[in-house]
Amino acid sequence: MKKILVIGSGGRVGSALVSKLAESDYTVLAGSRHENNSSPSENISFIAFDLLWDVDRMVEAMTGNIDAVYFVAGSKGKNLLQIDLHGAVKTMQAAEKAGVNRFVLLSSVFALEPIHWNESFLKDITDYNIAKHYADLYLTSQTNLNYTILQPGALKEESGTGKISVDVKEPLSNSIANVVDTLVAILQDDSTIGKVITMHDGETLIKEALKQVK
Amino acid sequence: MKKILVIGSGGRVGSALVSKLAESDYTVLAGSRHENNSSPSENISFIAFDLLWDVDRMVEAMTGNIDAVYFVAGSKGKNLLQIDLHGAVKTMQAAEKAGVNRFVLLSSVFALEPIHWNESFLKDITDYNIAKHYADLYLTSQTNLNYTILQPGALKEESGTGKISVDVKEPLSNSIANVVDTLVAILQDDSTIGKVITMHDGETLIKEALKQVK
Repeated sequence: MKKILVIGSGGRVGSALVSKLAESDYTVLAGSRHENNSSPSENISFIAFDLLWDVDRMVEAMTGNIDAVYFVAGSKGKNLLQIDLHGAVKTMQAAEKAGVNRFVLLSSVFALEPIHWNESFLKDITDYNIAKHYADLYLTSQTNLNYTILQPGALKEESGTGKISVDVKEPLSNSIANVVDTLVAILQDDSTIGKVITMHDGETLIKEALKQVK
Repeated sequence: MKKILVIGSGGRVGSALVSKLAESDYTVLAGSRHENNSSPSENISFIAFDLLWDVDRMVEAMTGNIDAVYFVAGSKGKNLLQIDLHGAVKTMQAAEKAGVNRFVLLSSVFALEPIHWNESFLKDITDYNIAKHYADLYLTSQTNLNYTILQPGALKEESGTGKISVDVKEPLSNSIANVVDTLVAILQDDSTIGKVITMHDGETLIKEALKQVK
């Protein structure tokens, strides 16, 4: 049974992702800097993981043959340089040092394409786009990790449809449930390795959509 | 006579650098987003250059066979993501597009070595270190520019001694005059191309010190 570390497990995406992975029979390490008093379920254990730590301290937290790391943390604009950018990069460096090969990064639509940053809601989050840009760029160009980067548009607290569009042309909205289901499906589809996947809610079943990614 | 563009020419380092370059018989384009009412001297002309511009707008400002670009701008912590990081990177991208091959970036001591970021005054400027880190990393790994990165420690409004140390072990202080003289000397010494040079005030004549850089 694969062991998966989720960084940012206290967030909206992270908490749903932890539950979904556990339901799918993964062993989940839920990493967060916040104390967590939830009773661990059979497949979930909570571990301390602070994005302000240095890389070596992160490596210590990645013991025990972890198969994959999800980075789904975010500072909500409060500490973009130290959390969303450098925290993400240190997590990548730690994963490499700890011998974890698979890395799934939750990013933001068009984070690697500044030409789109004046479109729609993106024009109001330039600092966020920049932080995500350089984290994504580091993962794609400076590591040897088997990465996948998922780039949804705006996240909505809506029920999931199980259907999405990929390689999208516009920044549109995404139910958190669809994003979480896509993150899980990415882990189960090695054709997504080495890809940067833009998405929004759509009309194609998630597993099918992932097969279509260019 | 070589034509040199200085980005951030209104700053403490930039204004001194513009004067020094003009004295050294370079033709200087002093780029700044601020209106400048100084009377241009024989070798200096002022041009508009805003680090919030997109890359193509920056390229337009780099017309006229510029031989080298200095990036010495900074937001003083007010807009690290958009100015110190992404503004610097866009300037690099514009220089490449405009066919300017030589690029000299003023950075900060140990910006590429996070292991030092808890030392001395560096521990109080983590956000700044991160912004400079990813700008430096982009220049060294993502461009084909003939770059030199100068990384002094704290800048002081003191008179210059003309003597520095390079490849330093500690973050110590630097007179702005020494930093400016070193920036000019870098342009005149092609052995500095492809190098990241840490410095502080020291005991070696600047030109000699640059020859010693590893």
